[in-house]
Amino acid sequence: MGSGLSVGVLGATGAVGTEIVRLLADERWPISELSLYGSERSAGKSVSWRDLNKTIQIFDIDSHNVHDLVFIATNSQNSQQIAPTLTKRGTFVVDNTSAFRMAEDVPLVVPEINFDSIQPENRLIANPNCCTIILLMAVAPLRRFGKIKRVVVSTYQSASGAGREGMVELEESTRAYLKGEEFSPEVFPNDYAFNLFSHNTEIGADGYNGEETKMILETRKILNDKEIGVNPTCIRVPVLRSHSESITVEFEGDAPSESNVRECLGAFPGVQVIDDRAGNRFPMPNDSNGQGDVYVGRIRKDVSNPHAISLFVCGDQLLKGAALNAVQIGERLFGLNNN
Amino acid sequence: MGSGLSVGVLGATGAVGTEIVRLLADERWPISELSLYGSERSAGKSVSWRDLNKTIQIFDIDSHNVHDLVFIATNSQNSQQIAPTLTKRGTFVVDNTSAFRMAEDVPLVVPEINFDSIQPENRLIANPNCCTIILLMAVAPLRRFGKIKRVVVSTYQSASGAGREGMVELEESTRAYLKGEEFSPEVFPNDYAFNLFSHNTEIGADGYNGEETKMILETRKILNDKEIGVNPTCIRVPVLRSHSESITVEFEGDAPSESNVRECLGAFPGVQVIDDRAGNRFPMPNDSNGQGDVYVGRIRKDVSNPHAISLFVCGDQLLKGAALNAVQIGERLFGLNNN
Repeated sequence: MGSGLSVGVLGATGAVGTEIVRLLADERWPISELSLYGSERSAGKSVSWRDLNKTIQIFDIDSHNVHDLVFIATNSQNSQQIAPTLTKRGTFVVDNTSAFRMAEDVPLVVPEINFDSIQPENRLIANPNCCTIILLMAVAPLRRFGKIKRVVVSTYQSASGAGREGMVELEESTRAYLKGEEFSPEVFPNDYAFNLFSHNTEIGADGYNGEETKMILETRKILNDKEIGVNPTCIRVPVLRSHSESITVEFEGDAPSESNVRECLGAFPGVQVIDDRAGNRFPMPNDSNGQGDVYVGRIRKDVSNPHAISLFVCGDQLLKGAALNAVQIGERLFGLNNN
Repeated sequence: MGSGLSVGVLGATGAVGTEIVRLLADERWPISELSLYGSERSAGKSVSWRDLNKTIQIFDIDSHNVHDLVFIATNSQNSQQIAPTLTKRGTFVVDNTSAFRMAEDVPLVVPEINFDSIQPENRLIANPNCCTIILLMAVAPLRRFGKIKRVVVSTYQSASGAGREGMVELEESTRAYLKGEEFSPEVFPNDYAFNLFSHNTEIGADGYNGEETKMILETRKILNDKEIGVNPTCIRVPVLRSHSESITVEFEGDAPSESNVRECLGAFPGVQVIDDRAGNRFPMPNDSNGQGDVYVGRIRKDVSNPHAISLFVCGDQLLKGAALNAVQIGERLFGLNNN
């Protein structure tokens, strides 16, 4: 690696980009040059990183520095315009948008699960949807107990999925509600204060919204299992930055024992089990907020189906659901973490 | 009915009791005497009802007036002490607590579904758990499409399930959070501001909590179907007074069409369908808060199982989930509503 890596972050001032920059400050990253890019609105702003003050630049694809690695944390349209040019120059791109997730020649990676799906020639790696990552951190390890037939999952998604503006709108609308003041939502289509609503992505002909369709298709790609059934219901709840998911996993054969599931998940890197029945203590967003691990609990045999188990999962949407997973992909691409 | 009914409400100043008193003001109720009972803390307080000011009394089982009908909206222990004495005197009792719900000789009633389970000799009628009522308002009508094998349901439960104190704690803890102040929860075991957690009822040997076990057992009793499988996950979310539920219904045979389900539920009394895919408009707590009906949407075939459909439901926990269902039972007992 010689004099160190040249790394770029697109969307460096957004909710996810901010976390990527923070994670790249870890000393394991031998970065000689970090370039932070943002919109015209953010350009010129100063962001502290390690002991430096970095200025936000506007990314110019024609004159940019050749980076070893670029994280894209903007939007799909932006990624579609930029990523192919970068990879042609040999730059590794870890893309947090949905632009290339389902492209056949682009690996879609949760490092703990399918880092080995990356081929030597791949330069563009897609970071999965937040709900999919958090779901699969709990579900993928269970394949050791037999073929999984079907997953039924209901999400409790946080405002952070709509970026910093979404988090601010949740706080501001709640503040207004508590003061008895009117509030007109701009980021979300509905009032969010003490309310919840179906994920506001377009509904397909099958009645599933865009977020749910991502969970179905991305799960199949990541698990390399075209047959696995996924039935998601994606709901936004008034929580700031952790997604929770109520999950029922149906196996082809009999369900594993609760203790085997607990042991399996507890041993999986990036997963922590909180499953204290006597103390009635199970995962909550307040456990996972700001944490890199995904928390699993309520592990139990499904009383309605001998082939199924149920569990409840919480994970930080901005970290394992986005920035951390992307940075972990980068770490492995450059041999900085071989766990 | 002669000179009108003598009606008593126990727990008249609680969140549910307040709604019962309000609903009893409807002119369809030929009430000649309304007695409102509360704790020592509430005794002596004045509550307006119709054009009267009613004083909260302490209930004395030895010297009480003989009522035609008593609503119990206190707690199970209190109901166990009081209800049998009242019914021996011929008083009809509609019990909102869980004390007698699973007693074999006590009907457990959602009027639109199984009012006919009440026998002429019954004096004590149990009002089901709030989550169960809201679930079954959407699920029971679907039995016309064939035998239901299994229901998988994840709840998004409001603070009102823990009474007025629960609602106040959600607001107060959120206010403190937004001001950056510390808050020590007293009603709930966990911080509630922008957080969610597994329902804080005792966990049984099977890993299901008390709320979930109620949903399983009460569903079987109300539907008079000992075989139906129910797999509930009960989660409290930071919403004030409506419960939401993400429901997947598996039939023995093929699932009905989406349009048949929509038509069936839209025609069922007490249910309204909000299912606008083009406008991305589905039920939310803000729709059902303060409303008597249960709102159903996201009606779709389960892409992971040809025998199943999924839907999303919201209902006011204090109204159809408690007070309204109880008052509707009373209305039918006294022939005030034969719909």
